[in-house]
Amino acid sequence: MTTLSIPDCLLHPNSVAVIGASDDPIRIGGRPIASMLAKGFAGRILPVNPNRATVQGLPAYPSVAALPEVPDVAIIAVPGEHAVTAVQALADRGTKAVIMFTAGFAEVNDEGAATQAEMVAIARRAGMRLLGPNTLGMVNMHNGFVGSFSGFASATGSRPGRVGIVSQSGAYGSHLVTSAMEAGVFPSSVVMTGNEADLNVADIVRLFAADPNTDVIAVYAEGISDGPGLIEAFRAAHAARKPVVMMKVGRSEVGGAAARSHTASIAGDDAVISAVLDELGVVRVRTTEEMLDILRLAGRRIFPANNSLGVVTVSGGAGVIVSDAAEELGIPMPEMPAAAQARMRKLLPICAARNPVDVTAQFINDTTLVTPFTESMMAEGGYATLLAFFSYAAAVPGVADSLLQQLGDVRKRYPDRLYVLVARGDPTILARFEEAGFTVFGDPSRAVTAIAAMGRFGEAFAGNTLAPVPRVTNVTLPRQAPTEAEAKALLAKAGIPSAPERACAEMEVAVAAAREIGFPVVLKILSPDIIHKSEIGGVLLNVANEGAVREGFALLLDRAAKAMPDARIEGVLVAKQMNGGVECIMGINRDPVFGPIAMFGLGGVFVEVLKDVVLRRCPFGPDVAEQMIRSIKGAPLLLGARGRPVADIAALAQALSQLSAFAVAAGPRLQSIDLNPVLAMPHGQGVYAVDAVIEVDPE
Amino acid sequence: MTTLSIPDCLLHPNSVAVIGASDDPIRIGGRPIASMLAKGFAGRILPVNPNRATVQGLPAYPSVAALPEVPDVAIIAVPGEHAVTAVQALADRGTKAVIMFTAGFAEVNDEGAATQAEMVAIARRAGMRLLGPNTLGMVNMHNGFVGSFSGFASATGSRPGRVGIVSQSGAYGSHLVTSAMEAGVFPSSVVMTGNEADLNVADIVRLFAADPNTDVIAVYAEGISDGPGLIEAFRAAHAARKPVVMMKVGRSEVGGAAARSHTASIAGDDAVISAVLDELGVVRVRTTEEMLDILRLAGRRIFPANNSLGVVTVSGGAGVIVSDAAEELGIPMPEMPAAAQARMRKLLPICAARNPVDVTAQFINDTTLVTPFTESMMAEGGYATLLAFFSYAAAVPGVADSLLQQLGDVRKRYPDRLYVLVARGDPTILARFEEAGFTVFGDPSRAVTAIAAMGRFGEAFAGNTLAPVPRVTNVTLPRQAPTEAEAKALLAKAGIPSAPERACAEMEVAVAAAREIGFPVVLKILSPDIIHKSEIGGVLLNVANEGAVREGFALLLDRAAKAMPDARIEGVLVAKQMNGGVECIMGINRDPVFGPIAMFGLGGVFVEVLKDVVLRRCPFGPDVAEQMIRSIKGAPLLLGARGRPVADIAALAQALSQLSAFAVAAGPRLQSIDLNPVLAMPHGQGVYAVDAVIEVDPE
Repeated sequence: MTTLSIPDCLLHPNSVAVIGASDDPIRIGGRPIASMLAKGFAGRILPVNPNRATVQGLPAYPSVAALPEVPDVAIIAVPGEHAVTAVQALADRGTKAVIMFTAGFAEVNDEGAATQAEMVAIARRAGMRLLGPNTLGMVNMHNGFVGSFSGFASATGSRPGRVGIVSQSGAYGSHLVTSAMEAGVFPSSVVMTGNEADLNVADIVRLFAADPNTDVIAVYAEGISDGPGLIEAFRAAHAARKPVVMMKVGRSEVGGAAARSHTASIAGDDAVISAVLDELGVVRVRTTEEMLDILRLAGRRIFPANNSLGVVTVSGGAGVIVSDAAEELGIPMPEMPAAAQARMRKLLPICAARNPVDVTAQFINDTTLVTPFTESMMAEGGYATLLAFFSYAAAVPGVADSLLQQLGDVRKRYPDRLYVLVARGDPTILARFEEAGFTVFGDPSRAVTAIAAMGRFGEAFAGNTLAPVPRVTNVTLPRQAPTEAEAKALLAKAGIPSAPERACAEMEVAVAAAREIGFPVVLKILSPDIIHKSEIGGVLLNVANEGAVREGFALLLDRAAKAMPDARIEGVLVAKQMNGGVECIMGINRDPVFGPIAMFGLGGVFVEVLKDVVLRRCPFGPDVAEQMIRSIKGAPLLLGARGRPVADIAALAQALSQLSAFAVAAGPRLQSIDLNPVLAMPHGQGVYAVDAVIEVDPE
Repeated sequence: MTTLSIPDCLLHPNSVAVIGASDDPIRIGGRPIASMLAKGFAGRILPVNPNRATVQGLPAYPSVAALPEVPDVAIIAVPGEHAVTAVQALADRGTKAVIMFTAGFAEVNDEGAATQAEMVAIARRAGMRLLGPNTLGMVNMHNGFVGSFSGFASATGSRPGRVGIVSQSGAYGSHLVTSAMEAGVFPSSVVMTGNEADLNVADIVRLFAADPNTDVIAVYAEGISDGPGLIEAFRAAHAARKPVVMMKVGRSEVGGAAARSHTASIAGDDAVISAVLDELGVVRVRTTEEMLDILRLAGRRIFPANNSLGVVTVSGGAGVIVSDAAEELGIPMPEMPAAAQARMRKLLPICAARNPVDVTAQFINDTTLVTPFTESMMAEGGYATLLAFFSYAAAVPGVADSLLQQLGDVRKRYPDRLYVLVARGDPTILARFEEAGFTVFGDPSRAVTAIAAMGRFGEAFAGNTLAPVPRVTNVTLPRQAPTEAEAKALLAKAGIPSAPERACAEMEVAVAAAREIGFPVVLKILSPDIIHKSEIGGVLLNVANEGAVREGFALLLDRAAKAMPDARIEGVLVAKQMNGGVECIMGINRDPVFGPIAMFGLGGVFVEVLKDVVLRRCPFGPDVAEQMIRSIKGAPLLLGARGRPVADIAALAQALSQLSAFAVAAGPRLQSIDLNPVLAMPHGQGVYAVDAVIEVDPE
């Protein structure tokens, strides 16, 4: 797949045509013009209106053909069929990008979808990109380019920021932007993608990854249809060290159904999306507030790869709240060194010096303590992040000045750390802390959530070198779903071992096979006509020696002949008897959006009842596979919990990694693989797929 | 235990003495006086100061003895030993309650703890109650009584509200109150309990339960030492139909350790506290914001016992967000009736009419749609709660008036429902929605969390009649921990069945026992000297008939004689062979704060690795026991998941309930009971404790 390029001028047009331009600054065709005039947009605005010589004081043109120049970008604000005509006319002129407000296409019915496809085809032929249709449009807060009729876009006075916001929903996107500005999170640009007939969220993320005005990227999405594009976009953001925060709604069954009724896109399985975002270092949020908190703190551009949290607090209770939240989110809170603790207690006997460092209200009464305490926490505690809980005391006049001075000095000496202040009170005083480099939160729990996200970004940017993906080549899937034996043979070639077994037509062949495989063995009657072998006594377990193999061979043939005299008997299957392994499940499912996804879990009730599984996009190396294995809740069963033998984790990880490479090598006809169970034997004894089912699209 | 009464005058004193009164309104001894004067407190303020004739314009008295009347309440703001003297003097005069700001007692060292105990003893003898020491004090916002030197307490102009706030932490309590007022949650009274030498959070909850100015109760706690008192207090609040919201910090290990270093109380196990709060209908919150959201919505005093959520939204995305959150929190969102949906689509063809009802931006353009849509949702949808997501559109002048009028009219016709508006914008316009009965949230996810809490209060207030607790009487614990057999016998008398077994000294006795118990049976060698029976081959499973019992009896005696010739052999234990049961665990642990707590879980990995257990305070009836059983994650294993037999849930619930009654009847010497495993047999076949360990305090 080749990714179409996105013209830079979408954010920075030199000229903007408005098709359906209105003289009324309130109407859809008038708003963008009024907004650009109000914001001092420096490019040329070219209103198109067959009925007027001027629009809002600008010279107007009767048609696209009559425009005095080729516009970089055109806004289409005319209804239905006129919109299609406009797209053709703009394509003919060589316009680079179109923003189409017009609704009534794929979101309405099949006819609309067909018209929409026609417009895209016109645009593609001309190399023109299309935002929408059915979009609220886009705004660049830095140059006053307003290609939107949304309320927030026309507001003046909001300052340009450094957060690129892209939303699939116009209405919720507007709510998000309004909420963001109220929370002090200012956008660089905002883009609503509407029907995504051409440009989609992935394209806009790529645009933001390259935008020098954007440091942080926020995505609101309801359904993802272009998996590879999104992955490429996230990689581009990652390469530019720009963190991405994503709110993907439709987690629940009800919510998912509501999302599907709301969008035309294929909603991939929610757990798959979480796995993909996790893989790519994108932080997924559940609520708008969580998103805004993370965006705000990310604006500091300090992303500790090895996060650790030091807490200084005037309230022991707040220290406990922060500790609770940090533990739940996995942020370490190491103790202060003993010597530093002793020095602290000397300065302030009633303090708790461990971490959280509880300095009590005394800190406010004697602010000279601030420097020695916080300096020691940064120097000796070495925390990547400092959270200071001063509540309303921070904003008390008199106290505030001293705090600001001292904290600011410490920060200057340790400028690579992340500083968070939990405080309430006079906004003008709190703003001074913000200016001094302290991001202010009103609530300690919310602060910790944002801090945790900075650590996750840091880990992602640190970019651990991953082990190579195993090479699996020359996979040829059969025309139809393979039998169990065929499936095992295919997988064995790809490095995924099954329990050794031999089909034996003769008794002495079976004896030799058992000898080769090693005792004890399992004997199973071999017949294409006998599916449920156990029911006729056709399986013998723990066959211990050669004599027993001979007896068992005869017994199975006898039982089969008696129970099903017409069955074709091909002999006996001799298989290795596996004892002492842990039952696992490995599988592959082709996700319509993200391709083959590997699944790992423990067998039996763990998968069936507890859904204790981990997913990952294929392919991946054995290091990632091992992380997956260790991440499930039941992992202690493989790691020797309560005196159990430790399973062969290395072999398990290798097999899972090989499976992921096989899934990719097998190509798009592969629908699913189900290895259930895979027996993870004790350390050093390997793993074996006991059953294997592969589903393929028939050729 | 008898609960001491709390004098009403603690909230409504007619006269307040201030020991250590200061003329300086900024000093600790001056602040309460200045605040009461500023707030127009109607009671008499009696400053005590040996060095001044007047304090802040009021006549002052040189000593407690010199006071012209017995004060209802006295504030003590003098240091250490003077404080103790003052307590004695006030007790001598017959003062009803003392608020002691003074610090330096149990929170500092053992000496301080002894002095504190002495003061309590003085107070108890005089029937005087004591708040503190080491407390920021208390404030009644309704009558201007300020017994506090905290910053928020001296602020004037904050309006009295109907939320009673009690906090164990002065610093965090102040942060909470400040945050509350900023969020529009106004307290009736605020009490900080400090060291809780006498009055504790439970006492204050009881005070609020009886306070006519308090509708809703908020508790911030770090450690609970008085379990029975807290339960009594929550019951009093419940009887008064006042919802209680509690933030109990120290959930995590780190947080718990920080809490212990911070308070002097015994911190009960966190999961136990959650179980107790759940039992009593108290909603436990994790963050301050969650608490404030719930308090604010609870102010409407509408608590739907069968909550259901109808959502009308101008953004499909917001509908998805709300649906996700509602599903996670278990709030049902039934669909609109088909006929009503059809009518809605006729009015607005592009709407999604199911629920969420997505009315798109068209709703704003044509506000005449508001009445037919919302009326239909209340009348035909029948939702207990309506959430309307209008975002910033609700506050658009012109739109707002029409929305207010129509929504207000619908609400008047269905006044028993809960109405939530998610909106942003001009606070004066949003305030009008609040006045019209619509609680406004800026974030949809937070709104849903608060709505879920209202449903939980509703369920608690609906007060389902519970099945009676089984009668278990005449339990006599042995002096020392009983043997397994003794434990089983004790439990059997209390109605908790064990697998039938007989100790048999003779072969033919064993045969008779097996016949009586029913085949197959298990045979175990019986010897006080052989602990690990399996290791010497001393256990025979699935012994199928009388002949096999005779053979087995001889075999076991022979094996024992060979393996351990010196062991005293008492014969053979004949026990019922249990096949096909599900291994469960039942247990009792005595919590130092809340007494015996029952635990139930599935055996093996479920308890060991996944910690999938449920707790409940003892005793309880079989209905509660069944709820417990059904609440664990692994419950499907008992309920027939994937073709398994359904276990005998009724018998399991009965046994668990009997165990809970036994634990109470056994009295405080019972430390713990461990029934591991209990086999839950298929439906109709009962349950059997296979092993039983009872730990007791030696007499």
